[in-house]
Amino acid sequence: MEIVLMDNLWVIIGTFLVLLMLGGFILLEAGSTRMKNAGHIAGKTIFTVGIGALVFWAVGWGFIYGEGNLFIGLSDFFFGDASFDGEGLSPAVDFMFQMMFALIAMTIMFGGFAERAKLSAYVLFAVLFSALIYPVVAHWTWGDGWLAELGKQDFAGSTVVHLTGAMAALAATIILKPRIGKFNKDGSANDIAGHNQVYTALGVLLLWVGWFGFNGASTFEVADAFFGFVILNTQLAAAAGAVAAMATVYLVTGKADVPTTLNGALAGLVAITAPAGFVEPWAAVVIGLVGGIMVVFSMKLFDRAKIDDPIFALSVHGTVGVWGTIACGLFATEAFSTGVGWGAPGLFYGGGFTQLGVQTLGVVASGLYAFIVAFIILKILDKVLGGLRVSEEEEIVGLDLSEHGSYGYPESMTKNDKTGA
Amino acid sequence: MEIVLMDNLWVIIGTFLVLLMLGGFILLEAGSTRMKNAGHIAGKTIFTVGIGALVFWAVGWGFIYGEGNLFIGLSDFFFGDASFDGEGLSPAVDFMFQMMFALIAMTIMFGGFAERAKLSAYVLFAVLFSALIYPVVAHWTWGDGWLAELGKQDFAGSTVVHLTGAMAALAATIILKPRIGKFNKDGSANDIAGHNQVYTALGVLLLWVGWFGFNGASTFEVADAFFGFVILNTQLAAAAGAVAAMATVYLVTGKADVPTTLNGALAGLVAITAPAGFVEPWAAVVIGLVGGIMVVFSMKLFDRAKIDDPIFALSVHGTVGVWGTIACGLFATEAFSTGVGWGAPGLFYGGGFTQLGVQTLGVVASGLYAFIVAFIILKILDKVLGGLRVSEEEEIVGLDLSEHGSYGYPESMTKNDKTGA
Amino acid sequence: MEIVLMDNLWVIIGTFLVLLMLGGFILLEAGSTRMKNAGHIAGKTIFTVGIGALVFWAVGWGFIYGEGNLFIGLSDFFFGDASFDGEGLSPAVDFMFQMMFALIAMTIMFGGFAERAKLSAYVLFAVLFSALIYPVVAHWTWGDGWLAELGKQDFAGSTVVHLTGAMAALAATIILKPRIGKFNKDGSANDIAGHNQVYTALGVLLLWVGWFGFNGASTFEVADAFFGFVILNTQLAAAAGAVAAMATVYLVTGKADVPTTLNGALAGLVAITAPAGFVEPWAAVVIGLVGGIMVVFSMKLFDRAKIDDPIFALSVHGTVGVWGTIACGLFATEAFSTGVGWGAPGLFYGGGFTQLGVQTLGVVASGLYAFIVAFIILKILDKVLGGLRVSEEEEIVGLDLSEHGSYGYPESMTKNDKTGA
Repeated sequence: MEIVLMDNLWVIIGTFLVLLMLGGFILLEAGSTRMKNAGHIAGKTIFTVGIGALVFWAVGWGFIYGEGNLFIGLSDFFFGDASFDGEGLSPAVDFMFQMMFALIAMTIMFGGFAERAKLSAYVLFAVLFSALIYPVVAHWTWGDGWLAELGKQDFAGSTVVHLTGAMAALAATIILKPRIGKFNKDGSANDIAGHNQVYTALGVLLLWVGWFGFNGASTFEVADAFFGFVILNTQLAAAAGAVAAMATVYLVTGKADVPTTLNGALAGLVAITAPAGFVEPWAAVVIGLVGGIMVVFSMKLFDRAKIDDPIFALSVHGTVGVWGTIACGLFATEAFSTGVGWGAPGLFYGGGFTQLGVQTLGVVASGLYAFIVAFIILKILDKVLGGLRVSEEEEIVGLDLSEHGSYGYPESMTKNDKTGA
Repeated sequence: MEIVLMDNLWVIIGTFLVLLMLGGFILLEAGSTRMKNAGHIAGKTIFTVGIGALVFWAVGWGFIYGEGNLFIGLSDFFFGDASFDGEGLSPAVDFMFQMMFALIAMTIMFGGFAERAKLSAYVLFAVLFSALIYPVVAHWTWGDGWLAELGKQDFAGSTVVHLTGAMAALAATIILKPRIGKFNKDGSANDIAGHNQVYTALGVLLLWVGWFGFNGASTFEVADAFFGFVILNTQLAAAAGAVAAMATVYLVTGKADVPTTLNGALAGLVAITAPAGFVEPWAAVVIGLVGGIMVVFSMKLFDRAKIDDPIFALSVHGTVGVWGTIACGLFATEAFSTGVGWGAPGLFYGGGFTQLGVQTLGVVASGLYAFIVAFIILKILDKVLGGLRVSEEEEIVGLDLSEHGSYGYPESMTKNDKTGA
Repeated sequence: MEIVLMDNLWVIIGTFLVLLMLGGFILLEAGSTRMKNAGHIAGKTIFTVGIGALVFWAVGWGFIYGEGNLFIGLSDFFFGDASFDGEGLSPAVDFMFQMMFALIAMTIMFGGFAERAKLSAYVLFAVLFSALIYPVVAHWTWGDGWLAELGKQDFAGSTVVHLTGAMAALAATIILKPRIGKFNKDGSANDIAGHNQVYTALGVLLLWVGWFGFNGASTFEVADAFFGFVILNTQLAAAAGAVAAMATVYLVTGKADVPTTLNGALAGLVAITAPAGFVEPWAAVVIGLVGGIMVVFSMKLFDRAKIDDPIFALSVHGTVGVWGTIACGLFATEAFSTGVGWGAPGLFYGGGFTQLGVQTLGVVASGLYAFIVAFIILKILDKVLGGLRVSEEEEIVGLDLSEHGSYGYPESMTKNDKTGA
C-alpha cells in the first residue's frame, strides 16, 4: 500500500512539473515573437489550456484509454472517478498526468499558428485537435492500440506528444502561409527576431525543469528509484543539445546565436523523450548531441523550403521528435527493453532491425495521421471561418489589438509601433 | 510510520507550491500596473513576505492554533518546535504550510494598496494584518474556533484566505480612494491598463501550478491518493473559469480581453478552493463556469460603484471567494462531507439548507471581521502616518522613484515617463 | 525499502528545485544588468549549464566522490550507474542532486564575468571551474576529504557552493577590471542600475523556492520529517535578511532601495545554508538578520575598494557565505551536532572554540583554494585568448551584439542604445 501511494505521489508531482512547462511555453513563444503579438500569444496559452482541459475531460481521456478497438477508445467520457482500489495509480492521478501531455501537444501545435491566425481558429482547433487528433495517436501507442501491440517504444512521447504537435503545426503553417515579411520575392528568408531573449531563456529553463517530470514520472512508479536514471539521461541529453547547437551555429555562421543555442537544449530534451528509460547515459549524450546539431540544420531547411516556422516547433519537436523515436531503435539496451518487457533492443545492442522498424512505422503512421487529419480539419475551418488568417492590416497592427482589443505592452508601443511601421 | 512520513512529504511539497504562488503574484501585480510602479510592486512582495513570515512566527501561528478560546488561540508564540512524534504532520511542516496561507492572504490584501500607498503603510499594515486579522479568521474555521464547531467547510480557504484578503483590500481601497485618472468627473471609469500582459499570463500560470499544492496538500495526508481527485476538481474549475470569462467578455464587449480571460482562470481557482474536496467533477466545472462569468460582471460593478480595484482582488478573491464558499452548501456530496466527518451535504445533495446556512454565516462573519478590523486599523494608521497615500506629485512620478529612489526599468523610462506624462 | 524510496523521492524533488534556482539566476542576473547585455546574460546561463553538466558527468563527480585521497577523488568518471541496491540514495539520484550544486556554484562564479567577458572565456572557464575548482573544495568537506575528517559543518554549502563561487568570481572581477563607467577618476563609484527590477524580484522568489530544496533535501532522507525543520530555519533567515537589509539601507541612505532589499533576502538564504540543520529557529532569525545587515555594508565596501561586483555575488555569496559558515561555530546546538554525529556544538552552546576553529579553517582553506586556482587559470586564459575582456567598443555596444550577433530586445533598443550612448 505504501509504495502504491508513493507511486501516486510521484506521478502527481510529475503533473505539477508538466503544467509548469506551459509557463515555459508562454515565455518561449512570447519571447520568440514580436511585441505587438505578445499579449495575445501569452494569453491564448491560458484559454486554449482551458478549452483543451475541458475537451480532454469530456472525450479525450475516453478516446485514449476507454475500451474500444485498436484505433480508438470509446468509453469513460466525462471523467468523474474518485475511487482508488489501492493498486497502481488512482484514476484521478492517472487522468491528470495524461491530460497534461495532451495540453503540451496542443501548445506545441499552436506554434504553427503564431502571429497570424484568427482567435476563432484558435478556439475551434483547440477543441478539434484535443478531441480528434491527439487522443487517436496517444491511443495507438499508450492505450490498447495497434502500435502498442507491436511493442513501439515511446517512453514519454517523442512521437505521441512532440511529433504529433509538430505535424499538426506543419499543416497549420502551410495553410496559413508565411507571415508578412518572412520571405523576400527572390525566395530568401528574413529573420523575424523575437522580442525578448530573457523570456526565451527562462522559458527553456522552465521547460527543462518540467521535463524532469515529463520524462521522470513516465516511469509511473518509484520502484528501484529508476526515475533517477531517467532524469540523469534527460539532463545529459539537454546539456549535450545546448552545447552542440551553439557549437554548430558558431561554426556555420560565426556567431553563437542565442535562440539557436536555446533551441539546442530543447532539441536534446525532445530527442531523449522517447529513449529516456531505454538507453545508457553515454548514449543519452550522443542522442542529445545529434539532436542539437540536427535542429540547427532543420531550421535552415525549413527556411529554404519557404515554410515559416515562427517558434521553431517543426524543427525542435518535429525533426528532433523523429530522431528521438528512431534513436530507441538504435540505442535501446537489452536490460532496459526486453528486460522490463517493453519492445526489443536496438540495432547497436544486437536487436537487429526489428525495433528500428517498429519505431519507424510508428513515426510514419503517427506523423501522417496528425498531418492529414489536421490538414483536412483546418481546410474545413478555413471555409467555415472565411479564412484562418487575420487581414493584412490586422497582422501589421498586431494580434493584441486586432483579436483582443488592447496591447500587451501598452506603454512600450510607440506611435510608430501602433501603425505597425 | 512510512505513510506518516509521506503525509509530511506531501504537505512540504504543497508548501513549495504555495510559495511559488507568490512569484505568480509578483508577476500578476506588476503586469497589471504601470511601469513607473513596477519595481515597487515586485519588490514590496519580497519585503512584506519577510515581515509577514516573522510576524506569523512570533504570534500568528499561536493566535490560530494555540490553546485559547473559540475566538482566538493564545499559546505557542515564537515557534521553535523541532520534535516529531511520528503521528500526523510534524509541527514544523504544519507550521510552514500554514505560514504560506497567511502570506497569500496578505499578498491578496495588498492588491487594494496598489499604485498609491506609502511604503510605511505597507510595512505597518503587513505587521498588523498578519497579527490581528488573518489569524483570527483562520482560527475560527481551521483552529478550535466557533465556525469549526459549526462544521463550516472551507477545504483550502475560499473564505479564510481569499475572502479575508479581499475584504481587507476593500477597506484599504475605500480609504485610499481611487488612483488619479481612474474615474472621470461624470463618474465614468477609465481603464488604467497594466503594462505587461506576458507577466500577467505567466503569473496566472504560476498561480495555477501553485494552486495544485494549495488545494491538493490541504488533504494533509496521502491516504487513498485523494489528492489526485482534489487536483482534478481544481484543474476543471480553472479551465472552466478561463473559458467562461473569455466567452462572457466577448459577448458583452465584442473583444476577448486578455486580462479578463486571465482573471477568469483565477476566478475558477478561487471558486473551487472551498469545495475542492467536497464535490464531483461535473460540479467543479459548473462552479468554475459560474466563477468565470461572475468575475466579469463583478469587475464592471466595482467600476460603477467607483471603487478602484487595481489588481481585481475584490472581484477575483472577494466576490468569487463568496461564491466558492456558498457552492459547498449547494454541491457538497454526502460521500465527501458527512462521509468523511466534515460538515453536511449541500442543498443539491439532499442536505437541505443546513450546510448552506453555515457557509453563509461563515462568509458574513469572516468577511465582516476582516473588513471592519482592517478599516479601523487603517483609519488609525491614516492619522498616525499623516495619510496612507503618497502625494499627488509622487503618485504621478511613480512609487518606484518616490518610495525606493530608483526606477524599476531605468532604461525604459523616457523623459516623458519621468514627468509622469 | 519504502522509506529508502521516499528518501530518493525527496532528493530528486530537491534536484528539481535546485534546477529551478537556475531560472532564478537567469532573472536575477538579467535584471541586475543592462538591456544591451540581457540576451547574452540569460542565454549564457543555459549553455554554461550544458557545459558544466557534461564536465561534471565526465570528471566532476569522480573528483568529489570517487576513491582517492584527502585532497581529491580519482574514480567513477563518465558516470553511468543505473543500479540501486535498495539502501540509501540510488547512484543516479545522488549524482543528479550533486550535479545541481556544482551548476549553482558555477553560475554564482560567472557573476564576476558580467557585462564584459568574452564568450570564449565563458566557455573555457565553465570547463575548468567545473573540473578543477568546485570538485576539489566539495571533496574536502562532502567527500572523503580532510575537512570532513575534521568535522566541518556545512549543511548545504555556505562554503562549498556559495563561497567557492564567490571567491572565483572575485578572481575574475579583479582580472577583468571594472566595467566602463563604474568608477570615476576620483575613485568614487557610480551605480550602474540593472534594467528590470521585476526580473530581479521574481528571480529572488524563484531562488527562495529553490532554496527549500537546496537546504531541505540536504537532509538526504525523510527520517523524522526533519526536512520541515530545516525549511523552517531557511524561511525565517530569508525573511529576516530581507527585512534587515531594507531597514539598514533605509537608515543609511534614506531610501528603501529595492535591489538591496532583494539582496537581503538572498543574504539570509546564503547565511542559513551552512547552519540550517544545526541551529534553533530563533538563531536562524538572528543569522538572517546579521546576513541582511552585513550585505548592505559589504556592497559599499567593495565599491570603496574599487572592485566591481555587478551582480553582488561577492557580497551575497562571499561575505555572507563566510558568515553562514562561522555561524555554525557559534549557534550549532548539542542536539543537532554531536547528537546526530556531525561536528561539535558552537560557542554559544558550550562547545567552546573547537567547532568555531574548524569552521574558520574550512572557510580560509576553501576560499583561498578557489581564489588562487581561479586566479591562476584565468591569468593563463588571459594570455591564451589575448585578453578575457571584449574590446571597449564591444562593451559599449553590448555583448548581445558583439558575442551573439543580435540584441536580446531588438524592438526596445533605439538608435541611441545601438551606439551605446
